[in-house]
Amino acid sequence: MLEQLKEDVFLANLALPKHQLVTFTWGNVSGIDRDKGLMVIKPSGVEYDLMAINDMVVVDINTGQVVEGDKKPSSDTPTHLALYRHFKEIGGVVHTHSRHATIWSQAGLDLQAFGTTHADYFYGNIPCTRLMTDQEIAQEYEYETGNVIIETFRQRNIDPMQVPAVLVHSHGPFTWGKNAKDAVHNAVVLEECAYMAYCSYGLVTHLSPMQKKLLDKHYLRKHGADAYYGQS
Amino acid sequence: MLEQLKEDVFLANLALPKHQLVTFTWGNVSGIDRDKGLMVIKPSGVEYDLMAINDMVVVDINTGQVVEGDKKPSSDTPTHLALYRHFKEIGGVVHTHSRHATIWSQAGLDLQAFGTTHADYFYGNIPCTRLMTDQEIAQEYEYETGNVIIETFRQRNIDPMQVPAVLVHSHGPFTWGKNAKDAVHNAVVLEECAYMAYCSYGLVTHLSPMQKKLLDKHYLRKHGADAYYGQS
Amino acid sequence: MLEQLKEDVFLANLALPKHQLVTFTWGNVSGIDRDKGLMVIKPSGVEYDLMAINDMVVVDINTGQVVEGDKKPSSDTPTHLALYRHFKEIGGVVHTHSRHATIWSQAGLDLQAFGTTHADYFYGNIPCTRLMTDQEIAQEYEYETGNVIIETFRQRNIDPMQVPAVLVHSHGPFTWGKNAKDAVHNAVVLEECAYMAYCSYGLVTHLSPMQKKLLDKHYLRKHGADAYYGQS
Amino acid sequence: MLEQLKEDVFLANLALPKHQLVTFTWGNVSGIDRDKGLMVIKPSGVEYDLMAINDMVVVDINTGQVVEGDKKPSSDTPTHLALYRHFKEIGGVVHTHSRHATIWSQAGLDLQAFGTTHADYFYGNIPCTRLMTDQEIAQEYEYETGNVIIETFRQRNIDPMQVPAVLVHSHGPFTWGKNAKDAVHNAVVLEECAYMAYCSYGLVTHLSPMQKKLLDKHYLRKHGADAYYGQS
Repeated sequence: MLEQLKEDVFLANLALPKHQLVTFTWGNVSGIDRDKGLMVIKPSGVEYDLMAINDMVVVDINTGQVVEGDKKPSSDTPTHLALYRHFKEIGGVVHTHSRHATIWSQAGLDLQAFGTTHADYFYGNIPCTRLMTDQEIAQEYEYETGNVIIETFRQRNIDPMQVPAVLVHSHGPFTWGKNAKDAVHNAVVLEECAYMAYCSYGLVTHLSPMQKKLLDKHYLRKHGADAYYGQS
Repeated sequence: MLEQLKEDVFLANLALPKHQLVTFTWGNVSGIDRDKGLMVIKPSGVEYDLMAINDMVVVDINTGQVVEGDKKPSSDTPTHLALYRHFKEIGGVVHTHSRHATIWSQAGLDLQAFGTTHADYFYGNIPCTRLMTDQEIAQEYEYETGNVIIETFRQRNIDPMQVPAVLVHSHGPFTWGKNAKDAVHNAVVLEECAYMAYCSYGLVTHLSPMQKKLLDKHYLRKHGADAYYGQS
Repeated sequence: MLEQLKEDVFLANLALPKHQLVTFTWGNVSGIDRDKGLMVIKPSGVEYDLMAINDMVVVDINTGQVVEGDKKPSSDTPTHLALYRHFKEIGGVVHTHSRHATIWSQAGLDLQAFGTTHADYFYGNIPCTRLMTDQEIAQEYEYETGNVIIETFRQRNIDPMQVPAVLVHSHGPFTWGKNAKDAVHNAVVLEECAYMAYCSYGLVTHLSPMQKKLLDKHYLRKHGADAYYGQS
Repeated sequence: MLEQLKEDVFLANLALPKHQLVTFTWGNVSGIDRDKGLMVIKPSGVEYDLMAINDMVVVDINTGQVVEGDKKPSSDTPTHLALYRHFKEIGGVVHTHSRHATIWSQAGLDLQAFGTTHADYFYGNIPCTRLMTDQEIAQEYEYETGNVIIETFRQRNIDPMQVPAVLVHSHGPFTWGKNAKDAVHNAVVLEECAYMAYCSYGLVTHLSPMQKKLLDKHYLRKHGADAYYGQS
C-alpha cells in the first residue's frame, strides 16, 4: 500500500540528519495521499540509522487510526493530522528541533524577514505561536499544537502556502510543502534563515524587517504566475 | 573481569569524540557494577585513537583502589566515585569540556529550561555549583568536586535521576544515566540544549524559563509511569 | 566555443559548495573573455551535483543575449553584466548568500577592516550598498543591482580591484577577481572576515577599524609593485 | 640536513588544516635545533595540499639567512626568529589566523582565564600586545612583531613557558611549545578556549577571571614537579 509515498517519506526522513537538522530521533516527516485520505509518517523514537521503509506507518487522516505498520507512529502524529485537515494544499509536513529555528521558538519571537534568502521562500515573517494554555497542554496536547498553529495563521491572515513554516512557542519549527521532499527543503531554508537572522539581530538592536517591495520582488520572481527563476 | 562492562565503557568513551564532545583527551566515561562494587573508567590522558578495551581501569567503589588495569585511572576518578556513592540509582557517569555546556559553567549560571528539547530530558534547570573553597581545592580536589555536586542537588532538592546533569562552576559538565551509554546520550543532549539556550538568551535579555505545565508535559511523556513516547 | 573558460567557470562554481558558501542552488560564478566580449555563467536554479560543463551558458557582454547553451543563464546574469561593463579589469564574478557576509548585508552595515586577515585581501572597508528604490526594484531589478554596486564604488571613490567585494543591502555579497577562481577565493576570504568581524564586534561595542598604517602594510606586502609575500 | 626536524615541522604544518586552524595558506609552523642554531619553517604562500617535506626551508637562527631549500621561507620568519632568540626554552612556534583567537586579537583584548580548560594549559590570561607604532610597522615589521610580543611578556612579567601563547593586536595568535607538535597542540587549545571565552563573555557582561586558587590547581596538576595528570 502506498509504496511510492512510503519511499518518499522514508527518504525525506533520512534527509533530516543528512542536512544536520536533527539529533538522535528528534524529528519526523510525513506525506499524504489526499485521494486515499491516508498519511505516511515516521515511527516514534526509532533511530534514523536503523529505520527501514517498512517501518513507515500509514495513518487514516480522518480517524487518526493506524491502518498499516507494526510500529507506533510519531508522537507528533496528531499535529500532522491537524495541519493536513486544515491546510488543504499541503502534501508533506516536517517537524524538527533544528538549532536556530528552535532558538527563535524558545525566545518566543517571530522570525522576521531580514533579507532576500528569506524572501525567496517565505512571503513575510514566520510567525511564532502564542503560549498554549494549561488546558491545551493537559488534554490533547499534540493535536492542540496543530490547532494553535492553525489559529496563528488564521488570526494573522497568513497563507500557509506562502509562508510554509511556523515556530511553536518554547518548542520548535514545523514546515510543510507540496510534498515530503519540499517540506524538508523548506526546513533547511528555515534553519539557514534563522541562523542568519540571529546574527543580523545581534549586529543591530531592533533591526527592522526588509523593504516590502524587495520582499515582493524576490518571493514573486520564484513563485506564482510571473516567476522567472530556474529552468521551467 | 567485567568484560561486558569494560566494552560498554570503552565504546561509550569512543562516542565522546564521535559526538564532538571532546578535544584531545578532555573527557572520560565510567560505568558501574553495583553488585560487585566495581567501577570501570577511562585511563588518564590516553588518546582516544590509541585506546583499547584493555586500557580500561577497574576501581573498587568503596576503597577507590585500582583492582585491575596497567594504567592510572582518569584524574577525575574521585569525582565519579563520589557520585556513584551518593546517587544510588546511576549506572554511568560522563565528564567533558563540551563547548557550550562549559560556557555556562564558566559564566557560573544555571542552564535554564527554555524549551521542550530540554524538557524531554531534564526536568527543570540544570544547576551550576557554587565556587569551591580554597580548602576544597587544596585538599581532595577531585573528590570535593563530587561533594559540591551532591550538595547542590541536596540543597536545591533536585532528584539526580530527573536532572541527570550538572555544571561545575568555572569547569564543565558532568552527566550521568542508567548506564555509560545513557550518560553519554545525556551529555549530547546537554550540549545541544546549552547551545540553543546560549542563542535564545542572546535574543531576549533575561529570558524566562518555559511554562511549568509544558515542562511537566514533555518530561512526563518520555519518563515515568505515563510515558508514551517511543516504541515500548 | 570557449572550452577552457567553460571548464574554469564550471570548476569555480563547484568550488562554492566545497567551501560551504552555498546551500542548494544559491550562488553563481561567471568568467569573461574580454577579447571575444563573451561571458560564461552558471545556468539558473540547477543543482551543483547534477551540473555538467556543457550546462554553462555563454552570454554576449554587450547585448546580454545567450549565444550558446540549452539552459537559461542565472537570474543574476544582468548584475554580472553590469559589473563586467563598468569594472574593466575584472575577469570573474561570484554571487553567494554565504552566511556571515549575508548577515552584514541584512544588517545594512559595511564590513569594517578589523584585522590583518581582512587587510591581506581588501584594502579597506567592504561597502554595503544603499537600499534600492521602489523603481529600481520594480524595473530591471537585477541590472539595477549591478548599478547600485557601481554607484557605491564611484561615490565612495573605492577601487574595485583593491576592494574586490561588496555587500548588497538586505541581500548578500558579490565578489570578483582577475578570473573566476580568484573571485571564488575572495568569496571565501570575505566569509571568513565577515565571521570574525561579527564576533569581534560582539566583544567590543562600536569597535573601531584597524590602524591605517597596518592596513597599508598588510595589503601592500601582498599586492602591487612592492609585494613580497609568496614565492613569486 | 635535519631530516627528522624537517619531517616534524612538515607534519606539524599539515596538522593546522586538519585541526581547522587555517584557511588557504594562512599559517605556519617552525621548529628549532638549538645545538646547530638552525630553524626549519614552512615556505611562504605554498598550499598545504601541494607541500612536500623538501619544501621546508632551513634558516640560520643568528643570521636569518636561508641555508637550505629552494623556496622563500614564510614571510613571518623574522617573528619566529625573534621568539626563538628571546624565549630560550621553546622548540616550536606556530602562527595562525584561527577564527576565535583572532577575534580577540581584533578586539584588542586579553584572553582571560575563565575556566579549567584554559587553566590546564595556560597559567593565567593570554596577553594581547599593544598596537604597533608607525615606525615599527614601516620598518622591520615582522621582526618588530616578535619584539612587541617579547616586550609584552617582559613588561607583564609572564613566563612564556607557562603562558605559551600571545594575541598580536589586530592580527592573530602565535603559540609555542617544547617542539613543533607541542606548539600546534597549544594552538588547538587556544582556539578552543578563545571560542568558549567569547561565548561566556556574551552570557555575563564584564565576566571576571576564574579563582586564582583553581587556576593554580589545574595548571599545577598538569605541569611542574607535582603534576599527576596522565600516565607518566
